[in-house]
Parts: sequence; structure tokens; C-alpha cells
Amino acid sequence: MPAEFSGHIGCVMIFPERADSWQYGAVKARKAFAEVAKAIAKGEKVTMLASHSQYDNARRLLPDYIRVVEMSSDDAWARDVSPEFVTDDKGNIRGVDFYFNAWGGLYDGLYFPWDKDNAIAKKLCDLYDIDIYDFSDFVLEGGSISVDGLGTVLTTETCLLSKGRNPDLSREEIEHRLCEGLGAEKVIWLPGGISGDETNEHVDNICVFAAPHKVLLSWCEDEADEQYEMCRKCLQVLENSTDATGEKIEVIKLPMPKPVYMTEDEVEGLDYCFGEPTRNVEERLSASYVNLYIGNKTVVMPAFGGENEEADKRAAEIVKSVFPEKEVISVYARDILIGGGNIHCITHQIPEF
Amino acid sequence: MPAEFSGHIGCVMIFPERADSWQYGAVKARKAFAEVAKAIAKGEKVTMLASHSQYDNARRLLPDYIRVVEMSSDDAWARDVSPEFVTDDKGNIRGVDFYFNAWGGLYDGLYFPWDKDNAIAKKLCDLYDIDIYDFSDFVLEGGSISVDGLGTVLTTETCLLSKGRNPDLSREEIEHRLCEGLGAEKVIWLPGGISGDETNEHVDNICVFAAPHKVLLSWCEDEADEQYEMCRKCLQVLENSTDATGEKIEVIKLPMPKPVYMTEDEVEGLDYCFGEPTRNVEERLSASYVNLYIGNKTVVMPAFGGENEEADKRAAEIVKSVFPEKEVISVYARDILIGGGNIHCITHQIPEF
Repeated sequence: MPAEFSGHIGCVMIFPERADSWQYGAVKARKAFAEVAKAIAKGEKVTMLASHSQYDNARRLLPDYIRVVEMSSDDAWARDVSPEFVTDDKGNIRGVDFYFNAWGGLYDGLYFPWDKDNAIAKKLCDLYDIDIYDFSDFVLEGGSISVDGLGTVLTTETCLLSKGRNPDLSREEIEHRLCEGLGAEKVIWLPGGISGDETNEHVDNICVFAAPHKVLLSWCEDEADEQYEMCRKCLQVLENSTDATGEKIEVIKLPMPKPVYMTEDEVEGLDYCFGEPTRNVEERLSASYVNLYIGNKTVVMPAFGGENEEADKRAAEIVKSVFPEKEVISVYARDILIGGGNIHCITHQIPEF
Repeated sequence: MPAEFSGHIGCVMIFPERADSWQYGAVKARKAFAEVAKAIAKGEKVTMLASHSQYDNARRLLPDYIRVVEMSSDDAWARDVSPEFVTDDKGNIRGVDFYFNAWGGLYDGLYFPWDKDNAIAKKLCDLYDIDIYDFSDFVLEGGSISVDGLGTVLTTETCLLSKGRNPDLSREEIEHRLCEGLGAEKVIWLPGGISGDETNEHVDNICVFAAPHKVLLSWCEDEADEQYEMCRKCLQVLENSTDATGEKIEVIKLPMPKPVYMTEDEVEGLDYCFGEPTRNVEERLSASYVNLYIGNKTVVMPAFGGENEEADKRAAEIVKSVFPEKEVISVYARDILIGGGNIHCITHQIPEF
């Protein structure tokens, strides 16, 4: 599986519409998604998947150079419902279709049903005329892994060993399936991710590969913050690990924004899901700058505004120093974050082959 | 607008599912559509559009080399809901999006609503990354025209001058819009098409261009048949016409099959549409061999079997003589015909550019 920081032939996103995920009928979320799409489209072809009922809306919000393609979905998390792609050095590519169960299925998944989401991997391979490997007996979301293209997989124990995914497999069996499915050789297990992250703490919100032998790690500097301890535990694992090539891993610390909380108005704007509120007033959202997209020419990262203006700026400078050859574009992402994820979660690259 | 007999980059079809159009839940129709798709795919890439609910069924019935792409529709008539395409000699192509109103809108259209069908032209251009001309103030279906790529348009008065399409435009205004939309210079008006054809007698069921200066004309040899007179009237028009280049038009007569009637069992297998039966027992179906698809390497034409076995064979031989360089493939098409059209109606080429 090629790394995200390698070249892409394009990027896929899904137009949001679910009113229990996106406040006030997803109107602001759609605008934020459009900004992300435009920023990525500076360097690669973006395809926005939209339901029939949202097709015209998508077409209206997006410039002509972004392709809109009808596709059904249960929500808008392209990272997690797309196939992963594996390539070889002969110019071959295959999609790998893992099973998607809405981050935990009937155990602790976030919605039901998820059949439309789970069908997207197959449909995308069909759309791009890419053959597919069926890995649907294994539950995996794209956001729960980060790879370096050299055979290393980063993941979190909280997520990959959760009871809602592959409860009958041991840690060793999960490692084996992961390596088999992704063409990898080594798994580095971080203990967890960002506290409160509903995906059982996907790795893409706390730590991702930015280059060979180099990761971005979300970093909490406030000792009183519940996140403080976990960031240090992750750092410790990384400092004591080598990647699949045997090299040490350089860790770039990306300081977190100040805590971001749901407002009363935002909670008011969300439909109920199964008779319950999706979010509560003053609920802390799992904000992190690591949840960014590494495009061909741009790195698109979240900004949170308000009292985080300074933090936004500082994070963008650090990211710029890691990707000096790319344009770093910050997109105001509060309306994406409210849905439960961020820019990395709503995008998926298709690698060059 | 290039002729259908010129080269294509591909062909689009729509997987049938509407139970008031296709008997017994469209099961047999889907198999017939798959046969058509496979025959065309011998010479060009076929994309089958399917709803989310039919996607797996389509994938199961079709070989891997046929692409299935999700798209909503109201029925399965790719000829009539696709954009037309116009090209120039600089390698440019544009889709032309005419308005589709289910063959007559609220006046004498065949179903309501038709919004999903009408959206397909735009969505297809988006899918293929082809820019579009908006001609949506003019009602037109692809089956109501046949072009030679030299500036000539064949059409029928019964259809293009029908009250359900562009009732506020005069014949001259309709000619003008047609030529403008299709990049044509001359319209040849046939008086009508095949009797009982619910599309107000689309030209593609009676007469189509097979080559420059050459048409196939559906031909009735039975004086007692209600179709006898109309075939002669059309021949007379053709014999007295020249095409846009000023040349005479050679007419190849393609004898019609013996009348094909709905059986009781078939009528029984159709859901009602707006509280009324779609078809009646012993209703005559508008069977014609002219309703064929001219692909890159194959000509795919209908066969009706039973007491038409001889007629099927004779028609295929004539078609073979017109396209000696292509493989002529007859597909048993009764299950397509019951829906109200035939192989040309369920296919649409995308020209080379």
C-alpha cells in the first residue's frame, strides 16, 4: 500500500447530508467540504460522490473541474468506506475491500444500517476500472491505519482490538490479516488516540506518516488535559520502535488546539439518531491538526478559529516545515469536526500506479 | 453530431428494474440487457448504470469487463435520457442536454415523475468529464432522431410535432432548434413510425442511417397490415429527398417480423402503472429490426424467435450485407420489446473525439 505522501491520480470525497451527523441540514458542512475539495483539486482530480437528491446541490457548490458522481452512502466518511489500494512495481493496482460496520457494528457502531457505505469500496473500484481483492471477512476503516509505503502500519490498540470489529481474532491474527491485506510487514501499535474520538480512537487523528521514517504526532502540552498522558505513551512507543526497514522514526510534535466544545446552538441543529441526541452541550470534540490530507501539491489541514487562531497558525507553520515543497492550506473545519472527524476522515487518495 | 456508425469510446446502458415496464420484476429483461451489453462490449467499453438496489444484481449478471456505475433513473431507456454529443475537428466534444419528459410529459407521457431520468444527461457528462451545453428548454429524446454525421437529421412528424413535447414551437422553429442543438443543417421529416409505438413513433424504430447516404427502412410486405401504408409514405419521402450534402439517399428495406402480441402470462407479469395495466392481452408490440445498435465491431440487433425465426434470419442477413466488416449479433429481444422499445432504445454511444 503506497503512502498518502506518494503521488495520487485523484481523491474521492462524499457530499454530506445526514442531519443527525451535520448540524442544520448539513448546509455549513457542505460548504466546508467544498473548500477542502477545492484545496485538494489544486494538485489532483477530485471526485465528489453525492446522492441523487444532493447531486444538484453538489454541482452548484463545486467548480466544474471537480467531478460529481452519483453514489449512495450512509454518511460522508470517504476515508473509512473507500477501498485501500495496493500496487506493485509492474504498474498494477488493486483495491482491497474490507468490511465496514460503522465503527463497531451492533456493539458500539455509530449508525445502522451501513450497507450503502459498505458497498462503496466495490463501486469505487468499478468506477475507476480497478480490480478488487475481497477482504470483507475483516473489519477495517482507512482512518484506523497509516502506512509509510515501506511496509510499516501504524494503528491503535483501542480501535483495532475493539470488540465491535474483529472480536474473534487475536492481536497476532489481526496483525497477520492487516499485513496480508495491505501488503505490509510490520505493525506499530500505539495504545490509543484522541480521547472522546467515537471511532475507538482512529490513528489518523493522533499520528500519521508524513514521509519515510517520519510521523506527525498530535501533542498535548497541558498537564491537566485528559489527553496529556496518551500523547506521551504514544511518543514512548514511537521512540522505542523501528519501522519495517529497521530505521528509527522521527517524531514531529504537532501541538493540539485548545479544547473545542459543542455549543447549545450546534446541539440544537442536530437531528436525533435512534431517538437520542448525537451530541450534548459542552461535549468536547476530538479536535486535532494531525487529521489532514497530504495531496499532490497541497496539504489541506483543519483550522478551528476563535481562541485557536494562534494555535492554527503555529500548527500550519510546523506542517509547512515538514512539507516545504507543498502549499499548506488551512480550511476552517469546525463544521467538519462536529460530524465527528476531520479533513483526513472525509477524503481518500487513489495512488498513482 | 457524429453518426452512430462512426467510432465510439463507449456505450452506456441502464439496468432495468421497473416492474410496470418489465414483466415479472424485470428478471428476464435484465438477462436480455446483459446479452446486449456483452455483444456490444466485443468492440467498445460498456458502462451499465444501475440503482443502488440493483447494483449487486448487475455486477452478478455482467462480466468484469463491463463497468457498473450507480445512477438513479426512472426507467431504463439510455437512448432517450442520455445527452447527445457534438464534436469538432479539433478534438473537442460537448454533451447536449435536452429536456426529457417521459415521451410527452403530462399530455401523453408514459410515467411520472421523470426527474431522475432527466438528470442523467448532466450526470453522464460529469462522469465522463465532458462539458455540457444546456438545451433544457427543448424536449427531445435520442430515439426520435437519426443523424448521418454530415449534417442531416431524420425524424418523424408524429413525434417531433407532438403536443406533449414542444407545443409552442412551429415546425420551422423545431427544425431550427434541432439543427442548432445537433450541429445539423437539414431535417428530413418522415410522416410517422411504427404503428402503436408509444413514443409517438420514434424514428429509430422505423428508419436509421447505416452509412453516409444510406438508411435502413423497416418494411411491411403485408397489404392487410396497418403498417403497410406508412412504410410506403416514408419510402416516398426518402426517394424525394437529398441529404445535407445534396446526395440522394439509398434505402435498404428491412422486412418487419410477423406481428408480435402480448400473451396473457406476460400481461399478468406486469405491475400496474397509475392504477392501470401497462399492456393488454393480444396488444401488438412495435417490433422492428431497425431498432439495432451499430457498435465499433458488432451490430447488435433484435430477434423475436418462434414463428419469426425465418424473418430473424433474413433480417440478420440483410444487416450483415450492409455492415460486411462488422459481426452481426442477434439477441433474443422479446423481453426488451415488452418494455416498449428495443436494442437501440436501451443503448447510447459516446463518440470518439
